Amino acid sequence: MPTNKESRAQAEKLIARCRKIASFSEEPGRTSRTFLSPPMRDCHQEIAKWLEPLGVEIRVDAAGNFRAFYAAAEPNAPRLLIGSHLDTVPDAGAFDGILGVLLGVALLESLKGERLPFGIEVLGFSEEEGVRFGTPFIGSRALVGGLDEDILRREDARGVNVRAAIENFGLKPSEIPDARLKGDILGYIEFHIEQGPVLEHMGLPLGLVEAVAGQSKMEFTFTGRAGHAGTTPMHLRRDAIAGAAEWITVVEREARRVPGLLATVGVLEGKTGAANVIAGKARLTLDVRHRADDVGAGAVETLIRMAEEIAARRGLSVQYGTPVNLESVAMDSFLVVQIEEAMRRAGCTPHRMVSGAGHDAMILAEKVPAAMIFLRTPGGISHNPEETVEVEDVEKALETGVHLLELLACSPALQKKEN
Amino acid sequence: MPTNKESRAQAEKLIARCRKIASFSEEPGRTSRTFLSPPMRDCHQEIAKWLEPLGVEIRVDAAGNFRAFYAAAEPNAPRLLIGSHLDTVPDAGAFDGILGVLLGVALLESLKGERLPFGIEVLGFSEEEGVRFGTPFIGSRALVGGLDEDILRREDARGVNVRAAIENFGLKPSEIPDARLKGDILGYIEFHIEQGPVLEHMGLPLGLVEAVAGQSKMEFTFTGRAGHAGTTPMHLRRDAIAGAAEWITVVEREARRVPGLLATVGVLEGKTGAANVIAGKARLTLDVRHRADDVGAGAVETLIRMAEEIAARRGLSVQYGTPVNLESVAMDSFLVVQIEEAMRRAGCTPHRMVSGAGHDAMILAEKVPAAMIFLRTPGGISHNPEETVEVEDVEKALETGVHLLELLACSPALQKKEN
Repeated sequence: MPTNKESRAQAEKLIARCRKIASFSEEPGRTSRTFLSPPMRDCHQEIAKWLEPLGVEIRVDAAGNFRAFYAAAEPNAPRLLIGSHLDTVPDAGAFDGILGVLLGVALLESLKGERLPFGIEVLGFSEEEGVRFGTPFIGSRALVGGLDEDILRREDARGVNVRAAIENFGLKPSEIPDARLKGDILGYIEFHIEQGPVLEHMGLPLGLVEAVAGQSKMEFTFTGRAGHAGTTPMHLRRDAIAGAAEWITVVEREARRVPGLLATVGVLEGKTGAANVIAGKARLTLDVRHRADDVGAGAVETLIRMAEEIAARRGLSVQYGTPVNLESVAMDSFLVVQIEEAMRRAGCTPHRMVSGAGHDAMILAEKVPAAMIFLRTPGGISHNPEETVEVEDVEKALETGVHLLELLACSPALQKKEN
Repeated sequence: MPTNKESRAQAEKLIARCRKIASFSEEPGRTSRTFLSPPMRDCHQEIAKWLEPLGVEIRVDAAGNFRAFYAAAEPNAPRLLIGSHLDTVPDAGAFDGILGVLLGVALLESLKGERLPFGIEVLGFSEEEGVRFGTPFIGSRALVGGLDEDILRREDARGVNVRAAIENFGLKPSEIPDARLKGDILGYIEFHIEQGPVLEHMGLPLGLVEAVAGQSKMEFTFTGRAGHAGTTPMHLRRDAIAGAAEWITVVEREARRVPGLLATVGVLEGKTGAANVIAGKARLTLDVRHRADDVGAGAVETLIRMAEEIAARRGLSVQYGTPVNLESVAMDSFLVVQIEEAMRRAGCTPHRMVSGAGHDAMILAEKVPAAMIFLRTPGGISHNPEETVEVEDVEKALETGVHLLELLACSPALQKKEN
């Protein structure tokens, strides 16, 4: 274990590195870095420079993922994956994604050349945000065999498809199968900023994710009858905005009633919109998340039924699309317990939480044990240049990581694998 | 009194004339006729053609108002004004405004040359809708001395101001003072489609307006904190859309509680709008109308207080502008009573109502006794090519008009004026 002073210096260096990487951008003055854009190459080179002294094998796979392998003490040992994504949203902060990659780098540094009973592969995924092609997780999908023809054909705003973007970067789409995970994988660990207010609200530096919530997205349109605000008495109105408003209050009430349920009307538009016109249409989006898919689906059903009841009572009609559902994904219970113990050793209260946002860990979990560690996000602010992390929280994350490597090194799971 | 057959023929002719005038448009295939646009000239010529056999003096005043004077039996007699406006909204129906002008023409025709103890001036106002310059009632304002320099300087979308539009039509802005009402005015009567569903709902062909409601318009913005719909628990949200929705339900409840109150949220926009983002801002418009200005003002106060309470409870802020108020305008009680009697004689139940929309009668009421007669509007549909009137209702309106002229001819008010 490093001294307090060393540990603080490490955390500060990590933050400085994140800020350095944030300077590699497609746009001057702000951070925007999409799938295999030119600054992604600078990003790879910079990280490779930091890894150089550590004796790692570095490659960029055919899906554009940066991969650095730190070998185990013995050949043919299993490997632990540590990583996150290198791409950003437009006008991004300096920590979303990259922090998890550079925490992997810092953990390798903390080993000071020591080799473990497992290898460590630090992963910097090429694409997670879905900005360039409207499809997220392009990088991590390649590792689980999910980067298929359908995705390769998707085009960006300029008509360049994923396949062409890979070729333009000097990579070979034909080698995508080589990006798949092979051999004995101990698990995948992802450090990521929380991007929410929960840890800050609880006064905790770290949290551990035990599940990624399932999600349903839908659009609703209430249709009534446009009318003159001055000539239509209240009892003869069929006001789409009033109906939509009543339903929004129901959505909120339902989400507050059901523990762990998140329900959000994020976009709301009253049409035929003039101040003196009773709205004939109101369009809304609904986003429902819960760690238990049946609870989420039940909430969606209830909210649809309530929308229909409200519409019927008010002489409105309500149209809605089929919900687009993402199933919830459980994190690996063995890894979760190991992380809990590592957090305790780092002096942190291990707080289990559900991630309402999607992450690469969700994709990796299809094939390998996966788990995540969240870092407190000041003000819950992310996807924004004002995104920050506290030095102390990064110290705790590093310390947890070091303990986790120790714990995994002598875990029965590994012993079994060695036998 | 005409026979039933004659009366039906008159009503049908009137409707045909309205449809003919609707063909004079700035746009092919739909009716759009703004202040002193080229089709307004065709409109004047067509109406003049219908009036020619009746022995009237016709002029277009310097504000572009069409004015046809049918002299009284004696010189220096007072005059009754009958009219409405000739301009339309874009993609208009065939009856809004023009029906009231052509009803005046038809009433002159029904006199078959008979001269009354008062003259009748049929008025076709050049501008009521406020489409071209964003300022309504330009025509009728000229009659009460309200077409001032401020209005003359207002510009249309192409940068042409009211003064230039008047000159371009071949009229002289310097003569605007001559457009003012002079001499002894018995009153102003305006027939107009209701543009609302009340008469249809009550099964009545006609209504009479005893007041034009006062009106307050405001904008409200609820501001919370944008957040990720997946990472922000319900109790840590400051959701502007949810706050706005709660307030809209309060607006509706308040309007239903207070008799005669109309309150409408007509435009509603949740900002930072993505389906997975908790809205940081929601913008709304409020339109409040009541015939009693103190009741309207009280409702506005209550709704502001409720907006502030809701915002405070939810950790939001709410900004609102100063209400733009239009005072209510009472119609002339003598004329209202005369119209009631005329309606009874025409076999109609006289239903007194408040106009929630503004009309030229409201402007004229500043200087002369004014009253309005509403015609049932099928489906409440107006400002729309599907706007219609029933032949039978037009018959009743004509019959009411004929009785009203008889009643006014022998009214004590007029006797007094003759003495």
